[in-house]
Amino acid sequence: MPMTTMADLCLVGIDELTEKVKAIFRKSGLTDANAAALTRALIAGERDGCKSHGIYRIEGALRTIKAGKVRPDAVPRVLPSDGSAIVRVDADGGFSNAAFELGVPALVELAERYGLASLVINDCCHFSALWPEIEALTENNLAGLAMCPSYATVAPTGGNRPLLGTNPFAFGWPRPGNDPYVFDFATSVAARGEIELRRQAGEPLPEGWAIDVDGRPTTDPAAALSGAMLPFGGHKGSAISTMIELLAGVMIGDLTSPEVLDFLGTTTLAPFHGELILAFSPKIFAAGRPGDPFARAETLFDAILGQGARLPSQRRFAARAAALTEGIRISGEEMRQLDRLLAHGLGEVC
Amino acid sequence: MPMTTMADLCLVGIDELTEKVKAIFRKSGLTDANAAALTRALIAGERDGCKSHGIYRIEGALRTIKAGKVRPDAVPRVLPSDGSAIVRVDADGGFSNAAFELGVPALVELAERYGLASLVINDCCHFSALWPEIEALTENNLAGLAMCPSYATVAPTGGNRPLLGTNPFAFGWPRPGNDPYVFDFATSVAARGEIELRRQAGEPLPEGWAIDVDGRPTTDPAAALSGAMLPFGGHKGSAISTMIELLAGVMIGDLTSPEVLDFLGTTTLAPFHGELILAFSPKIFAAGRPGDPFARAETLFDAILGQGARLPSQRRFAARAAALTEGIRISGEEMRQLDRLLAHGLGEVC
Repeated sequence: MPMTTMADLCLVGIDELTEKVKAIFRKSGLTDANAAALTRALIAGERDGCKSHGIYRIEGALRTIKAGKVRPDAVPRVLPSDGSAIVRVDADGGFSNAAFELGVPALVELAERYGLASLVINDCCHFSALWPEIEALTENNLAGLAMCPSYATVAPTGGNRPLLGTNPFAFGWPRPGNDPYVFDFATSVAARGEIELRRQAGEPLPEGWAIDVDGRPTTDPAAALSGAMLPFGGHKGSAISTMIELLAGVMIGDLTSPEVLDFLGTTTLAPFHGELILAFSPKIFAAGRPGDPFARAETLFDAILGQGARLPSQRRFAARAAALTEGIRISGEEMRQLDRLLAHGLGEVC
Repeated sequence: MPMTTMADLCLVGIDELTEKVKAIFRKSGLTDANAAALTRALIAGERDGCKSHGIYRIEGALRTIKAGKVRPDAVPRVLPSDGSAIVRVDADGGFSNAAFELGVPALVELAERYGLASLVINDCCHFSALWPEIEALTENNLAGLAMCPSYATVAPTGGNRPLLGTNPFAFGWPRPGNDPYVFDFATSVAARGEIELRRQAGEPLPEGWAIDVDGRPTTDPAAALSGAMLPFGGHKGSAISTMIELLAGVMIGDLTSPEVLDFLGTTTLAPFHGELILAFSPKIFAAGRPGDPFARAETLFDAILGQGARLPSQRRFAARAAALTEGIRISGEEMRQLDRLLAHGLGEVC
């Protein structure tokens, strides 16, 4: 049983929470392999203090299963090699997580052979953070990039209605003996969840986050949610988001963000599309050149930290270190909700 | 002879301007191959109305030759293949342009074999725009990414002094029968040249462009030039710029932006470092998947244009179309300066 602390917080062991979440997914019809992989991703979020990608996402996953927009019994498979440096995993209409895990060994092998390689996941339901995937590469001493579309909720700069997704972009660099350098961010100014939270709290949005249905700038969260979000960094972020539609949608023969929205008809279910991962072997790239790339990267990180700036994900790694020794801190209400989901599934709670 | 038009503007044929610029570089000691490749890049900038990467850059190139920070007689060479999907070109300490051109055929071949491939240029003096290189890929029906460090002039978000470069990031997608989708931007809020232009004009900077030597936000161009520029898009742009240091500096065994500044001791010469180019074959990536990637990309572009937004580089392609029929428009003073450079070299004009 979780210990209850002040302010209705529970400290729960990682293994205990993992078993509970996995049981919820098993009960919803996910096969064991799918439930285990999806649970690993959500527990990683909760463990790292990344609540927006933690157990909060369980209900969205269950709704998506219930709506028939993801196959709970999907059996992902690695497609036969075509001799390229691309590993292709057919997710069989299931959640992306098991498909990703299945593709990693072949991706690592190809990256170590060719210096760079790509993992393409097709036909998956994707709503996880990308950093657990990036960390699967850095653990293998590879640098990595990951990106995917979402659904059309973001207007291109100069436009007036949703077209692009929040299109996450993530990168990692391995730091042997240390937490990796990892960033993972939405290419919209804000995540949709942040706008929803401000709507619930009755707070206005900062300028520059969104436009209303008529394409005018708005600070009203409700108007923003029925209008469109804006890309980060003006036209530069808009261009990067468009690049993600092209590379991780069009190029890999999977849905773009407007096509995802057409397919789902709503933004309340987890999006269905593909994902593009690129892996790079610093060892192979740097071969024959002066200096050790891992040591040289540390010089750069020291210089960043030395002027008082942070590395991305530092807070996340600190939360992880605490969770690994103390357990994960969730609210009593969250724990009761997990118990209700386990006992009654989605029907009783939504 | 160029026709003089009102307001002291000349219309000069592309070939005529090319010959004049190439002759200036030949006279400065560049070999024919180096002079030709460098001239192609600068003429492309001038032709496309991209003045900041046009003939304006000639003097910086000549200063860099005179300072001994680039080899005018460099003979770039493609290194023997190591069986990876990486093409390595040793620029032999020369300008990057001839090295890039030399590596393209092998890059295209590897990208068509493996689906993705990389071109690494090492030991080059690099100050050209990246879009001419991206267009060399899109002309071969490849998508491409290009990036490189610069010299330390940008503070990481949360920091207080120069560390990162303006680190350009460029991407292209081929559009058969049309101008490609191309973006190419600095990962700083503004280019250093824009700050310099405002200093000369006595105009303040917009908020958020720069900090002074004490790390405080400033709108004074002079204070910004002795302080540090800021990355675009806050911590997200800062992270992307750091990624460029890692991939296109550390990983390829070449200088990072702080190392470039140490090497040169000034930001008035063209920076010396390496460059990373990634090429992707949409045809290979999309094989076996529904839909033609080039046609599907057009649907996305139509949707962007259909809501009144622009595609990046549209202005540049319009300027190009005009230049190809009418010639390139430069000022009488620019033309006289070219003639002075041709007659007397840098000695008489700086």
